[in-house]
Amino acid sequence: MRQDGTRIVLKLEYDGAGYCGFQLQPGVPTVQGEIEKALYRLTGECTRVTAASRTDTGVHASGQMVSFQAGAVLGLPEYVSGLNYYLDAGIAVKAAYRVDRDFDVRKAAASREYRYSILSGLTRSPLRHGSYFLVRGRLDMENMNEACRVLVGRHDFAAFTTSYDRRLKDTVRTIERAAFTREGDLIVFTVVAGSFLQHQVRNIVGSLVRVGLGRMTVADFCDIVKSGGTGKAGPRAPAAGLCLTRVNYPAPFWEEKWGDQ
Amino acid sequence: MRQDGTRIVLKLEYDGAGYCGFQLQPGVPTVQGEIEKALYRLTGECTRVTAASRTDTGVHASGQMVSFQAGAVLGLPEYVSGLNYYLDAGIAVKAAYRVDRDFDVRKAAASREYRYSILSGLTRSPLRHGSYFLVRGRLDMENMNEACRVLVGRHDFAAFTTSYDRRLKDTVRTIERAAFTREGDLIVFTVVAGSFLQHQVRNIVGSLVRVGLGRMTVADFCDIVKSGGTGKAGPRAPAAGLCLTRVNYPAPFWEEKWGDQ
Repeated sequence: MRQDGTRIVLKLEYDGAGYCGFQLQPGVPTVQGEIEKALYRLTGECTRVTAASRTDTGVHASGQMVSFQAGAVLGLPEYVSGLNYYLDAGIAVKAAYRVDRDFDVRKAAASREYRYSILSGLTRSPLRHGSYFLVRGRLDMENMNEACRVLVGRHDFAAFTTSYDRRLKDTVRTIERAAFTREGDLIVFTVVAGSFLQHQVRNIVGSLVRVGLGRMTVADFCDIVKSGGTGKAGPRAPAAGLCLTRVNYPAPFWEEKWGDQ
Repeated sequence: MRQDGTRIVLKLEYDGAGYCGFQLQPGVPTVQGEIEKALYRLTGECTRVTAASRTDTGVHASGQMVSFQAGAVLGLPEYVSGLNYYLDAGIAVKAAYRVDRDFDVRKAAASREYRYSILSGLTRSPLRHGSYFLVRGRLDMENMNEACRVLVGRHDFAAFTTSYDRRLKDTVRTIERAAFTREGDLIVFTVVAGSFLQHQVRNIVGSLVRVGLGRMTVADFCDIVKSGGTGKAGPRAPAAGLCLTRVNYPAPFWEEKWGDQ
């Protein structure tokens, strides 16, 4: 019998197309809202969940991490299968972890990993509906990867965020890894950073696609990155291509875990 | 200006979930029905299309080939973009080919390639909704691949088809290739044969999963394959996991082509 106030972390996968982003908003479906509703149905308790990374409307996740203070006396397998029973097909709890009461799923995260999928071709792909950005025209991978090398490191990314973030936040971020790889007929951009500004990944991808299409030189891209906010980034790439794939913690953070890893 | 009666081949991708199979049936959405409707809207002509492989309800395709006799004077790019304009998001024309008037898309095919995707885990995957078979329990890939080696070659597959096919058709088929590979967290069965009996792939997968779970020995599976119809196969695997990925022709069959390959 566990004591009251156990902290639980859940690993979530979701198809962002059906939700107005992660964060709770009145009157519209959100991932947070759906999880809290399912928790209420399962446990009878009103529970607030916190996410490691707040994804925007339409953005997907295969490795989102959320946490909540649990009152109910349930085992980890019951959280996973019970919540999946109440959640609709667009969201799944992949795993559950019992963690220390003081664990902060957001602050404890060392880095976040996002993938952005580009389909370079002439026609849409029904089997991957809503999970890629269709770019008509040949993309020069070599130039795109050269531009990626400019991104890595500590920069002021003000040029790649919203005016809201620009006004209110420190816009310096450190990108640990950024590269394009081919996966079958997809071109996948993988980017890892301690944290990201709002719309940062999609704004970066928008510019990198311009580089790939030859509409922006690597030198121009470099200038925008180094401009500290005054440079003009390319158009924002659509949400459908973006997926939060992983939240990294510096050390094993759980006392007990159950589910798919 | 092309002469009347050009034969056109289209390469199709579709999400089988929305259709009652390929073949036209009154009152329900079918892939054939949707293509013929889009052709009518594009050209104003009533056109009958033939497929290389008639997929069942819920079965997907990334490389289905269909052909029709075209009266309209349209170029290949207009067929691709025009049909994609009229088709809904579940079907796409990936490429178009102008072929000889006598070309038979079904009879000319040397072989068909299918993929069956298995997710071996405890929880569903919203990002791959409707495109895999969730198997709870560890699958022994080595035993499954040993069983695959039994499949390859010329056998009477009566045990793996429907009673309809068993009564009316020669049930001997030659499997050229059959193997399981890992792709990330998916276990993918790839099978190639000149042609397949109805439900043959799904019935084979149902038995192979039993082998993987240790509920059927490789020797038992071998006995069913060699039984020529009297052996009892495992339960049929669900349609969602199956995808027609490729139709192989012995030689380049087109005079002109356009689109994504």
